[in-house]
Amino acid sequence: MRHVPHLYISGPWEAPELSLSDAHLRHLSSVLRLAAGAPVTYTDGAGSRGDGWFRGDRIERGEESGSAPMSPQVVVASAPPRTSARLRFVVEKLAELGVDRLIWLQTRFGEGRPPRMNKATAWAEAALEQSRGIWLMGIEGPVPLTQLDSSTLWVAERESKPPPSVVNGGTLVIGPEAGFAEGEIPAAARRLSLGSRVLRVETAAIAGATVLLEKSGRLSQ
Amino acid sequence: MRHVPHLYISGPWEAPELSLSDAHLRHLSSVLRLAAGAPVTYTDGAGSRGDGWFRGDRIERGEESGSAPMSPQVVVASAPPRTSARLRFVVEKLAELGVDRLIWLQTRFGEGRPPRMNKATAWAEAALEQSRGIWLMGIEGPVPLTQLDSSTLWVAERESKPPPSVVNGGTLVIGPEAGFAEGEIPAAARRLSLGSRVLRVETAAIAGATVLLEKSGRLSQ
Repeated sequence: MRHVPHLYISGPWEAPELSLSDAHLRHLSSVLRLAAGAPVTYTDGAGSRGDGWFRGDRIERGEESGSAPMSPQVVVASAPPRTSARLRFVVEKLAELGVDRLIWLQTRFGEGRPPRMNKATAWAEAALEQSRGIWLMGIEGPVPLTQLDSSTLWVAERESKPPPSVVNGGTLVIGPEAGFAEGEIPAAARRLSLGSRVLRVETAAIAGATVLLEKSGRLSQ
Repeated sequence: MRHVPHLYISGPWEAPELSLSDAHLRHLSSVLRLAAGAPVTYTDGAGSRGDGWFRGDRIERGEESGSAPMSPQVVVASAPPRTSARLRFVVEKLAELGVDRLIWLQTRFGEGRPPRMNKATAWAEAALEQSRGIWLMGIEGPVPLTQLDSSTLWVAERESKPPPSVVNGGTLVIGPEAGFAEGEIPAAARRLSLGSRVLRVETAAIAGATVLLEKSGRLSQ
């Protein structure tokens, strides 16, 4: 069972054929050894998707469709974990799962630093292709918590309480492993319990995003 | 905010003092520079937990308590992903989240191989300590799906249907990226939808385990 290759090609698409990046070209020709005329799908990462054909060095466009943004939006605002492998897992897994935006948080006790933006974007683009999505995860920050709308926040916490059964999206806040400083969390923020275990930043981000997506009905859209 | 070190020391505990492995000793003395007399917690990974003190080269036991096994049990049976980083991620994250057992699956189209057992066990033990748990995740396999009780299976699938709102534990089955062969999934197995995205093995394992733990009430125990 082999999937048709799914390509992220940023828009706007104007000509009847789309040119391929060197990386795409190498992947399609040398790694996948795709024959000219083979079917591919493509997306602009902004809700549009097309069925086209590989034409050696470009894509011939075929039938295309656009979608409205996913609703409700699910955002993750996370302190960066400390190692490159864990940073990459956060970006890649949240992008695969369909999180809409990832915001790196600046916190008092945080020790990690966000990856370079072009690196993080490349991870998110690869995850979009891998997962055959049509919405590219946005990446922003670093910003302090005070710059986010506090009424939409869900702060992940180590606590044994069931989450609400239905949630209308929002921004999941993942603190650094050393925790938040006193007063750092806005009073209006709600709490999302992720059980009694102490989770690493990337584990809390992925598990918390899964709970928030599922409770918001986003896994059944 | 510094956590008291939490140590996995396998039982049965008989003497009033527990001796430390070389790795523990190095970590406590050289990395954490723990002073003699400093408090630690310890677990046998089988439901017991104690509050004790670091005594230079061993642990003095203090108050101890035991717990009944978590209920309902949540098991993940997964095809091994293909790279070492992703294998490690599966073991580490499932152990952190509190999955009870991980069974490596032998499948027709699977391309990955399970990690060596002593390596996988070391990852699970480190995750137990990190997450301050008291139940060490068991690791088994590889076995084919036919060796598992088919009435307890939940097969993760790419589908946009809401999961049942309450689940009584069970075994989450994660296929290889190439999918299952015809007839490989027992007819009695139930399906657990994880949304319309194509997820990598490790992403499906972690997100699926989160959904199964949450729907089984295990995140609120």
